[in-house]
Amino acid sequence: MPLTIDQLDTPCVLVDIDRAEANLQRAQDYADAHDIRLRPHIKTHKLPRFATRQVALGAIGITCQKLGEAEVMADAGLDDIFLPYNIIGPEKLHRLLRLNGKPLRVLVECDTGMGRCGVQSPEEAVTLAALIAGSRGLVFGGIMTYPPAGSPGPARERLGAIIAALADAGLPPATVSTGGTPDLWSAHETRAATEYRPGTYIYLDRYQVAKGVGTLEDCALTVLTTVVSRPTEDRAIIDAGSKALTSDLLGMTGYGLVLGYPDAVVTGLSEEHGTIDLSASEKKPEIGERLRILPNHACPVSNLFDRVHLVSGDHVVATEVVAARGRVD
Amino acid sequence: MPLTIDQLDTPCVLVDIDRAEANLQRAQDYADAHDIRLRPHIKTHKLPRFATRQVALGAIGITCQKLGEAEVMADAGLDDIFLPYNIIGPEKLHRLLRLNGKPLRVLVECDTGMGRCGVQSPEEAVTLAALIAGSRGLVFGGIMTYPPAGSPGPARERLGAIIAALADAGLPPATVSTGGTPDLWSAHETRAATEYRPGTYIYLDRYQVAKGVGTLEDCALTVLTTVVSRPTEDRAIIDAGSKALTSDLLGMTGYGLVLGYPDAVVTGLSEEHGTIDLSASEKKPEIGERLRILPNHACPVSNLFDRVHLVSGDHVVATEVVAARGRVD
Repeated sequence: MPLTIDQLDTPCVLVDIDRAEANLQRAQDYADAHDIRLRPHIKTHKLPRFATRQVALGAIGITCQKLGEAEVMADAGLDDIFLPYNIIGPEKLHRLLRLNGKPLRVLVECDTGMGRCGVQSPEEAVTLAALIAGSRGLVFGGIMTYPPAGSPGPARERLGAIIAALADAGLPPATVSTGGTPDLWSAHETRAATEYRPGTYIYLDRYQVAKGVGTLEDCALTVLTTVVSRPTEDRAIIDAGSKALTSDLLGMTGYGLVLGYPDAVVTGLSEEHGTIDLSASEKKPEIGERLRILPNHACPVSNLFDRVHLVSGDHVVATEVVAARGRVD
Repeated sequence: MPLTIDQLDTPCVLVDIDRAEANLQRAQDYADAHDIRLRPHIKTHKLPRFATRQVALGAIGITCQKLGEAEVMADAGLDDIFLPYNIIGPEKLHRLLRLNGKPLRVLVECDTGMGRCGVQSPEEAVTLAALIAGSRGLVFGGIMTYPPAGSPGPARERLGAIIAALADAGLPPATVSTGGTPDLWSAHETRAATEYRPGTYIYLDRYQVAKGVGTLEDCALTVLTTVVSRPTEDRAIIDAGSKALTSDLLGMTGYGLVLGYPDAVVTGLSEEHGTIDLSASEKKPEIGERLRILPNHACPVSNLFDRVHLVSGDHVVATEVVAARGRVD
C-alpha cells in the first residue's frame, strides 16, 4: 500500500478519515442533544467499515437503498436495516424474505413535496396502512418521507396531517422516518419524526457546502487527478471525467471545485477528460501537477470506484473495497 | 442463466446481439468500400468478446482510453492497441512499458476544434513530432485527432494544414487517426485519414439517433427497468436512476427514451429513482410493468454495470462480465 497520497496513481478517490469521523461525531452529538434517532443512509459511502462506525457512535441502525446493498451490509454484521424503496417482483421478495426471515415491518412512504414516490394524501396513507396492518406476515411500522431539500416547513405540515389522519384511524405510526443531509441541522424542528436518515453528511460535497450544511474544510471525499495537458494558457485537461466526477451539476456551475484554485472552473467533462477553464485563475497548474477536486455530489462518485483510499493528512491509512458499489438491484 | 428477458431482475442492461452485430458489419462494410481502416474504440462496450469480434470482422486493431482497459484487452489476446490518451507519471509509464515491450510508436494529438487536448497549431505539431522522432525508444507514428461532432469540414482543414507542415518538415505522418461515431458515415470525406476510431457505433444511443447515425431500430443497448410506483395519474417512478442511466443529457430533453411510450418524458433522476412524466402520454404503464429505456449515452452506462445481458429478441444468450469496467487509470 502506498504510504502517502503522492504515491497513488490517478484518478482515485481520497476519503479524509479524520474529517469523516468528525462529521459523523458532529451529527451524532446533535442527534443526541435533540433526542433524535439517526439511521444513516449508507448509499454515500457503501462501506461496511463506516456503517459499523455509525452504529458504534450511536446510530440505531442503517438505511440502504437497494436489496443488494442491504445484503452486503447484513453479511458484514449490520442487523437493523431499513430499506426505503419499493420492492417489486418475486425475485426481490424472495431475497427480502431471506434477509428478514420474520414478520416484515413496513412503512408507508409519503410524498411531502419531493414529487417522487409515496402516497399523495392522508386518505391514501390510511388506506395503505390499513392494508398492511391487515396482511399476514406484515406489520404496519409507521411512515417515511424524503422531504425536498430546503423545504422542511411545508413538508412538516403535510407529515403532520398524515400522522393525525392515521391516529384518527386507530393506526398511529410508531416510526416516523425522515431525512436528508441538506436539512440535517433543522431535524429537531420536525418534532413528529422519530428517525432521521442522513447520507451525505459523512463526506459532504460541494452541493452540501452550497446549502450551508458544512464548510469546505469539512468535506472528506475528493477525487485526486493529474493535469495531463495544458494545450493553451487558459485550459487544463485532467484525467478525471464523467467516469470519476459524474455529470451531476445539481444546479451549480462547473463539475466540481478545484481545491487550491478557487477561480478555476471545470467547464466540461467527457468520460475520461475534465476541461478546466483557467482564464479567471491567476495561478495555473502545470502538466503533471496533481489536483484535488471536490465533487458536486459525493454519493455517485463512490459508486464509480471499486476502491477508495482512506487518508489522514497526506498519509494513506487504508485502501478499502467499496463493497456495496454496483449493487444495482 | 435466465432464458428470457422476463426472468431478469431489474434494473439491468440488455444488449441486442443481433443489432450490435449488424451495426458492426454495416460499419465494416462501409469502411471496406471506402478503404478506411477501422480501429474501434472499446470504451463503449468494454467487453473482450466484442473487441475480438470487431477485429475478426476486419478492424486493424482496437482503441482503449485507459491503460487499465488496454491491460484487460491485451490479456484477452488483443495485440494491436492504440491509446489516444496522455500517459503521465512513472507508474503509468512502467505499465505502458510492460504492455508494449518494444520501441513505442507515438502519435501527436492535434486539437482540430474539440477544445480538449492536443497541439494548437501546425508549428506545435512539427515541434512535438521532431521531439518524438529524436527520442530514444520512441518512434514518431503520425497524428491523431478527435474532431467535434458535426464539424468534419473545419476539422479536416486544420488536419490538412498540420499534415502539410509535417511533410514540409520531413516528418510526414504515417498514421492519421480520426474518429467519432457521429461523423462515421462521412469518414470517407476526410481523405487524409488512414484510421478511424468509432466507439458508440456498436450500440448507438439516443444521441446518435438524434445525430442521424442510425435509427431507433438499430440501437442495441437498453436499460430494463420496472415501474415501482405510480403515485399520480401522470407520474411513474422506475428503478433506474442516475446509477443506471447516468446524468448525461447531451443537450437533449429527458434522461432517455422510454421505448413503446414515445410521449413519456424521463424528467428527473435521483440515484435509484427515475421520474417519468406521463402527462402527454395517453398510454400509462402499470406498477410492476417493465420498460426498456434507450439511454442518451450508451458508453457510461456500460461503465456502471458489472454485467450485461446479451439478448436475441427476448432470449438471453449470455451474461457477460464487463471486464474493462471501472478501469479508471
